[in-house]
Amino acid sequence: MSSNTAGKLFTFTTWGESHGPAIGCVIDSCPSRIPLAESDIQPWLDRRRPGRNAQVSPRREEDMVRILSGVFEGVTTGHPISLIIENTNHRSTDYQKLASIFRPGHADATYQHKYGVRDPRGGGRSSARETAGRVAAGAVAMQLLRHTEKTRQVEIVAGLTRLGGVEADTSKWDDRAIDANPVFCPDAGSVDAMLATLEEAKAAGDSLGGIVEVRVRGLPAGLGEPVYDRLDGRIGGMFMGLNAVKGVEIGDGFAAAGMRGSENNDAMRHPQSGRLGDSFVTNHAGGILAGISTGAEVVVRCAVKPTPSIGVAQQSIDMNLDDIELDGVGGRHDPAVCIRAVPVLQAMMATIVADFFLLARARNQPEF
Amino acid sequence: MSSNTAGKLFTFTTWGESHGPAIGCVIDSCPSRIPLAESDIQPWLDRRRPGRNAQVSPRREEDMVRILSGVFEGVTTGHPISLIIENTNHRSTDYQKLASIFRPGHADATYQHKYGVRDPRGGGRSSARETAGRVAAGAVAMQLLRHTEKTRQVEIVAGLTRLGGVEADTSKWDDRAIDANPVFCPDAGSVDAMLATLEEAKAAGDSLGGIVEVRVRGLPAGLGEPVYDRLDGRIGGMFMGLNAVKGVEIGDGFAAAGMRGSENNDAMRHPQSGRLGDSFVTNHAGGILAGISTGAEVVVRCAVKPTPSIGVAQQSIDMNLDDIELDGVGGRHDPAVCIRAVPVLQAMMATIVADFFLLARARNQPEF
Amino acid sequence: MSSNTAGKLFTFTTWGESHGPAIGCVIDSCPSRIPLAESDIQPWLDRRRPGRNAQVSPRREEDMVRILSGVFEGVTTGHPISLIIENTNHRSTDYQKLASIFRPGHADATYQHKYGVRDPRGGGRSSARETAGRVAAGAVAMQLLRHTEKTRQVEIVAGLTRLGGVEADTSKWDDRAIDANPVFCPDAGSVDAMLATLEEAKAAGDSLGGIVEVRVRGLPAGLGEPVYDRLDGRIGGMFMGLNAVKGVEIGDGFAAAGMRGSENNDAMRHPQSGRLGDSFVTNHAGGILAGISTGAEVVVRCAVKPTPSIGVAQQSIDMNLDDIELDGVGGRHDPAVCIRAVPVLQAMMATIVADFFLLARARNQPEF
Amino acid sequence: MSSNTAGKLFTFTTWGESHGPAIGCVIDSCPSRIPLAESDIQPWLDRRRPGRNAQVSPRREEDMVRILSGVFEGVTTGHPISLIIENTNHRSTDYQKLASIFRPGHADATYQHKYGVRDPRGGGRSSARETAGRVAAGAVAMQLLRHTEKTRQVEIVAGLTRLGGVEADTSKWDDRAIDANPVFCPDAGSVDAMLATLEEAKAAGDSLGGIVEVRVRGLPAGLGEPVYDRLDGRIGGMFMGLNAVKGVEIGDGFAAAGMRGSENNDAMRHPQSGRLGDSFVTNHAGGILAGISTGAEVVVRCAVKPTPSIGVAQQSIDMNLDDIELDGVGGRHDPAVCIRAVPVLQAMMATIVADFFLLARARNQPEF
Repeated sequence: MSSNTAGKLFTFTTWGESHGPAIGCVIDSCPSRIPLAESDIQPWLDRRRPGRNAQVSPRREEDMVRILSGVFEGVTTGHPISLIIENTNHRSTDYQKLASIFRPGHADATYQHKYGVRDPRGGGRSSARETAGRVAAGAVAMQLLRHTEKTRQVEIVAGLTRLGGVEADTSKWDDRAIDANPVFCPDAGSVDAMLATLEEAKAAGDSLGGIVEVRVRGLPAGLGEPVYDRLDGRIGGMFMGLNAVKGVEIGDGFAAAGMRGSENNDAMRHPQSGRLGDSFVTNHAGGILAGISTGAEVVVRCAVKPTPSIGVAQQSIDMNLDDIELDGVGGRHDPAVCIRAVPVLQAMMATIVADFFLLARARNQPEF
Repeated sequence: MSSNTAGKLFTFTTWGESHGPAIGCVIDSCPSRIPLAESDIQPWLDRRRPGRNAQVSPRREEDMVRILSGVFEGVTTGHPISLIIENTNHRSTDYQKLASIFRPGHADATYQHKYGVRDPRGGGRSSARETAGRVAAGAVAMQLLRHTEKTRQVEIVAGLTRLGGVEADTSKWDDRAIDANPVFCPDAGSVDAMLATLEEAKAAGDSLGGIVEVRVRGLPAGLGEPVYDRLDGRIGGMFMGLNAVKGVEIGDGFAAAGMRGSENNDAMRHPQSGRLGDSFVTNHAGGILAGISTGAEVVVRCAVKPTPSIGVAQQSIDMNLDDIELDGVGGRHDPAVCIRAVPVLQAMMATIVADFFLLARARNQPEF
Repeated sequence: MSSNTAGKLFTFTTWGESHGPAIGCVIDSCPSRIPLAESDIQPWLDRRRPGRNAQVSPRREEDMVRILSGVFEGVTTGHPISLIIENTNHRSTDYQKLASIFRPGHADATYQHKYGVRDPRGGGRSSARETAGRVAAGAVAMQLLRHTEKTRQVEIVAGLTRLGGVEADTSKWDDRAIDANPVFCPDAGSVDAMLATLEEAKAAGDSLGGIVEVRVRGLPAGLGEPVYDRLDGRIGGMFMGLNAVKGVEIGDGFAAAGMRGSENNDAMRHPQSGRLGDSFVTNHAGGILAGISTGAEVVVRCAVKPTPSIGVAQQSIDMNLDDIELDGVGGRHDPAVCIRAVPVLQAMMATIVADFFLLARARNQPEF
Repeated sequence: MSSNTAGKLFTFTTWGESHGPAIGCVIDSCPSRIPLAESDIQPWLDRRRPGRNAQVSPRREEDMVRILSGVFEGVTTGHPISLIIENTNHRSTDYQKLASIFRPGHADATYQHKYGVRDPRGGGRSSARETAGRVAAGAVAMQLLRHTEKTRQVEIVAGLTRLGGVEADTSKWDDRAIDANPVFCPDAGSVDAMLATLEEAKAAGDSLGGIVEVRVRGLPAGLGEPVYDRLDGRIGGMFMGLNAVKGVEIGDGFAAAGMRGSENNDAMRHPQSGRLGDSFVTNHAGGILAGISTGAEVVVRCAVKPTPSIGVAQQSIDMNLDDIELDGVGGRHDPAVCIRAVPVLQAMMATIVADFFLLARARNQPEF
């Protein structure tokens, strides 16, 4: 029960700091005989990596992944899959200044207090670089799902549906739009406004928050374990545990708090397909009831706070708890971390689905 | 890794169905020599139990708890604490009708699909009765916190801040108000409106959703384990995993998505007390940064959907997936499950804090 | 990860003390739709219970098991199965004397030191009564194995192969003999000698050790998870963790230390059956290679120390670490705990096999 | 719960195959501020590595360890410590021949059956190289123990007490002798006979088994968690789970089966030191009662089978289960794997002690 490990059967353990020699991920209990090569993982990392366009962190990392174990002659062996990504562009010349101060909204103060020591270079372990391991694990999870008969139809997509004050029209969600714009927005009509507000914030030395929506289609009904390891619970736990996420909602989410039962319940009608998931007339539940997938589309939204690193002046304290005035936090930061959170949350969802699929198969459930 | 067990060091396992002979909870790895008697647990259960007033389920249960193990001469022994609550008022005469239909918004369809069998009496394992075990575990957790020097100052409170369309004024939060009204509202001025809207919904055979807010004060900085077992992640996972909860947010939560970094960051100033938690000028973060408690007040809100059992006509299907028309779902239901969710979420927070406290002590952290 | 829980997917948690109101067991993640009734469990408990003949503890307990949850209309529901056994014959009138002394060979000193408090009545949590929960869990595990197509052929037997100085001839192992004598010896020819040596030891106020052998037949090849959760590792851990067990060996065990590779390796020949397990000409490995079942018979032996409670004078110390002289330890003790360890170890093996079977099914292995 | 992870709080996850690019280990939840450098780990690996003398495998590996994460400015940060060891001397030219046959006594058949694929080069994941990760984790565990006030006095030693037919005189155990001879024998007087029997076996193309004894001194009383995670259970599980180990015993072990209670019980007398561990007149229990350390020396013995790779002719089968005749298994094998098992078991014991120490500290036990 390493606290750097996620999952029960399909597990992954990440390690590494922003400015160490490398970061990595060990994936365990992936069943054997699943096709896997670096080229199955790299495209996922490419979507997440910094420096890919003007909307994300200018840090230039190739994020080239290497498989060090667990694969033989192109298929998984059932043993740990060790992945490594070297840190090539870590500039840590000026970290001494950061070593003694606490940046507002960052892990500095809590890490210092909890551990009594911290690596101040680029945030150390709290850096967004840690999420590369999550993305790699998600890529492997997708290979498992795609190469297993019962799950090959599962589709997981994610998009940015709000950036600062600009809300996308999610009724116009188009999967193909997502990778056609630099902010992963599924509504092409909102992209220009998003880019404009981002430019404005950047110009002001400020940052923006946003909302990421993740959707899962084709999920069989019955996924999720009882009571303390439910599908909604796991999503809530994993997603809220991503840096900068401050809220998670499923289906109608917070809007359900203002509804009546007669509005929020999803009526059911005989499904022509015979699939339970097709019986729901509406999907207020977001595809999950009592912690178990209904077979309808799973819909999850995450609120991502604005990047705490900003160029404007801030009040803070140093390690002695004495007042300091910050001119602005330097470094190569994302103006809106919610953008790169899109592929990360998508990948994390894949690991969750893979894990619950294995658990369901252990239980010998009808569709698994 | 029973999926009916929560926690890592301070763990609890619940068992039992709504209409079986009893429900219960086994708490493990509570350190020894903590004073504990049934009278320490019963008041917590009394706040949660049905039938206590006109605003909750009319099912009459005394919910008398008995300690069957783990306590000797008034203190914990360090061994499993087995708690049992008998089901005294389970009427299951007419469940045959329910056995073959799926009630909208309930676990019926997903349980049937996942398990191939289900106990239709009162929802079986998916019944809100399961939460009595969580509340009992929370009571034991509070005993641990109160009787340990480093944590005796921790205060955990919870209140209903929204009921249907009525939102409380949380700036008027008063702990003493909470138990002075039947809906656990911390803002006395909103109670009448809440009661009125609840009456109206009940009269219409309908139900209401709401928002529960949980606050933790006096928590030392440094609570939360790295990356995949963070304090925010655990809260997100546990709270989202409570039946009917559809959203969880911490601090500014979803509002943070529309903010700029300069608005969302909490400025820091030298704390006279020397406590890190007192250095934050504002608390947009809700007491948690990078998954670790900052020492400021932890603030969490949960969106609770309206009770799916309603008296109005609904369309649904039966076990053969054929259409049925429901006149209304009978039984003794809460018109707004969010009310009784208040003590449940409060208790769950206590178990989370207790667990992370033990983990922090294992790490030999400064304040633990 | 309660430390009173065993297993990964098929888990059980035991609770309760020797002289409390009851003991019990919560079994979780047993798949649904497995036939289960109290009458499936009771025969297993009857073989373990004290007072059944002159060779075991005279404490009279009916050990009647009740199922409190997890079963509906005769089958498991996939939810926790809570079992309870009331303690009916606990005499605790004279425990005050025991409260302040440490009995040699018992848990008294270590429990006092670790927990700072202990229930001295009948050993409290360290009592052999705790094993009733293990036996009940084993009975449920056997139901799972017997009612699942891939595992219905699995047979698990256990017998006493040594009692004090009397060694059974294991080449004459006969399953039917085991329950035909009061010491569970599989070699009918050794029973008289065992009974005689037991009588002699009892007459001297002394106790005997022994060896229990557990055999598993019909186990498919491929059971056991890699590296840190191997079948041999799990057996070693669970069996060594049973009170009074001081040694565990598999196959040739300690004798292998004196062998050459050419003697210890099991030659293989083409199996007519097509089963890998039938290919082994010999079975020095005891059915496990590299932590994974080979399909050959699994053979495990446990060394059980003599009951520490004896009637002869002993030197000890009290809670102040001061010297005391014990005339003899009273109570109703087994003259040789190894006898009742036979059904306990057999049951524990069933839980291990059930758990690894579920793990193998999750991996989609060929025979599961 | 990766099955390639060991431990509960102090955990380690190993990955890698014998003939892949590298092997490694991720250690998690080591508390922060523990001094750690590669030079603290390397000496442990040097004792285990092949090619160091004529008595072990001639494979030449430098086994140079690199720390990739979790250490900053010479101390642990509380985050995962990723260690990597490159495989430099992997010759895999002729593995095609091995790919289709099952070597007796090896993992070949079980791996093929379980996973449906295996890396035949040097045993892949089942290679003894995996144990380098365990040794590295043990080195970190020792750093934790040595740099923590409550545990700095803990000493863990291990030695070879039997090699083939030669048994050392353990009454002459001398820690200093262990590293003064090539077989890690603690009894200098037995070394010549051990070397002679090893030469004889090698000359015959055969291999030898042996016994490794591990001793822990200075361990405070109270280590070990209740019932299913006891100190003896953990040792039994971890040690039995090391490749080639076929038996584990603690204290008198199997000899206890033939004893009477009056012989096996350890009398107690007032300890001048005030330490509970010093009160035992004898140590038949091997330092553990009821799964908890008594404070006396912990004494564990492991039976290690002879290396299955031998040069003599053997009967076996191939992947089609057809008969084959092996002339002898080539490769660079240890003539007696028990020799290199000495530092491995010593290191594994260190990880166990470190883990239970953290668990005891979480419980706030008197000596931790």
